[in-house]
Amino acid sequence: MRFAKGHGTENDFVILLDPDGGAGLTADLAARLCDRRAGIGADGVLRAVRAAASGETGGADGAEWFMDYRNADGSLAEMCGNGIRVFARYLARLGLVGGPEFTVATRSGPRRVRLGTDGDVTVDMGAVAVLGPGSALVAGQTYQGLRVSVGNPHLACLVDAPLAGFDLSRPPGLDPGQFPDGANLELVRVTGPRSVAMRVRERGSGETRSCGTGAVAAAAAAAAASSAGDGAWDIRVPGGNLTVTLEAGQAWLTGPAVIVAEGDLDPSWLAQPGSSHHDHGDLAVPTAISP
Amino acid sequence: MRFAKGHGTENDFVILLDPDGGAGLTADLAARLCDRRAGIGADGVLRAVRAAASGETGGADGAEWFMDYRNADGSLAEMCGNGIRVFARYLARLGLVGGPEFTVATRSGPRRVRLGTDGDVTVDMGAVAVLGPGSALVAGQTYQGLRVSVGNPHLACLVDAPLAGFDLSRPPGLDPGQFPDGANLELVRVTGPRSVAMRVRERGSGETRSCGTGAVAAAAAAAAASSAGDGAWDIRVPGGNLTVTLEAGQAWLTGPAVIVAEGDLDPSWLAQPGSSHHDHGDLAVPTAISP
Repeated sequence: MRFAKGHGTENDFVILLDPDGGAGLTADLAARLCDRRAGIGADGVLRAVRAAASGETGGADGAEWFMDYRNADGSLAEMCGNGIRVFARYLARLGLVGGPEFTVATRSGPRRVRLGTDGDVTVDMGAVAVLGPGSALVAGQTYQGLRVSVGNPHLACLVDAPLAGFDLSRPPGLDPGQFPDGANLELVRVTGPRSVAMRVRERGSGETRSCGTGAVAAAAAAAAASSAGDGAWDIRVPGGNLTVTLEAGQAWLTGPAVIVAEGDLDPSWLAQPGSSHHDHGDLAVPTAISP
Repeated sequence: MRFAKGHGTENDFVILLDPDGGAGLTADLAARLCDRRAGIGADGVLRAVRAAASGETGGADGAEWFMDYRNADGSLAEMCGNGIRVFARYLARLGLVGGPEFTVATRSGPRRVRLGTDGDVTVDMGAVAVLGPGSALVAGQTYQGLRVSVGNPHLACLVDAPLAGFDLSRPPGLDPGQFPDGANLELVRVTGPRSVAMRVRERGSGETRSCGTGAVAAAAAAAAASSAGDGAWDIRVPGGNLTVTLEAGQAWLTGPAVIVAEGDLDPSWLAQPGSSHHDHGDLAVPTAISP
């Protein structure tokens, strides 16, 4: 099976090319591919399958390709702002799309993407809404922030201290009344006009080097707290630089999308039983990569 | 440039095919390839170059291929027991060697390897010597062990407690008189006749899922401490199972060598400046993978 590895601001992905949907993508294969020692290693898998063959959409939304996305643990995911940008770059690299702007079908609906001439890719992130104040307990201290919805729930806290000094190794304490489903936490520091730096701890994953919806939430919270509102915001994350454009409650995410390598999965490896699941018994020591 | 990714008991490598030595391998490229987010991700890079073209050996030792090995930080390394097994599997897979047994040139001299019919690869690890008693401070407690040389220095401590209970997150305290150059630390639990489980913390790398010389040291220490001496020892490591055969002060290492995928590095990615070195400034949060 043909594959590629790529990343967007160091959010990294294995991409599988499965035009007619014949190969499929099981939870077990996704987890094996994302295993950073026994597989390729990635934050998630993006399977490229023609929309008409995907069984997920009738193709009525004009999208030629469906992005079948699974997390590193094999679970299904709806959308990923960095992932879809890498996905679009890969399709264009292979000449599988007609022009620099097209629609990709995802489990959260069709998404418009646009390839820049400089390697950047922009994706329509849809609606963003600042819902009101919220707070989180981080390493024993309470921080006030804004609850933001970008499809998924966020708490974006504007802070004055250098971001490197925060300990995000443990999940933040959140009020279940404010966040019944948990939330991603962004620590955001304003660094200039329409310019912020941010660190993010993703619900269920820990700290990551970049998060597309987190960048949108950070921009929306910083915009709400300042006189600078709609427009293009520079968002610096540990894995690089993103631009979030806000306009009347809608957001677009722009940033680099890099293909590192392409090739074929080894048939013998594919045929192996799930090596990431072998019984470590007494030797079941942690294997997490952070952040 | 053509590449593969593979692993031996979850010690993982990027392999580059560079028969005539024209491509070379700089420290910067090795570090970029091993970057688990912005590159492919691996513990090290193995470059396959014909011995006659390597500039490292005259080919007089009968080796057709030289293994140019660099660690994940780009530094040169002499030999790697798991790496050379993956290297041999890769050459055989591509039909670049004449039979199942051949010699590979390395910076620590020629090494004989033999491919089994079951996916295993055996490598001659050379001399192993138990030098005498030693001790280490691990998480505030002192453990007695045996100092073992496998070319590089080891302290192998036989313990009775379950291995999962030890904290190897910090470097062990070692007596500089016993270990002027530091040492790899193995915690070894005897699990049966000529059978042990081990965890290893490698000098300069932290805890890893497997270590070829560590497995040899563990076998030699367990053999010295028991009535079972020379012969085949089963060594269970967090990343899988290895066999160490001891005979008259020499050791052979046998275990799986898996090729996961093959392909080509993207020319645009190769031409980029070292993305793993971009300035994170205030966002310079840790990126270590453990173990």
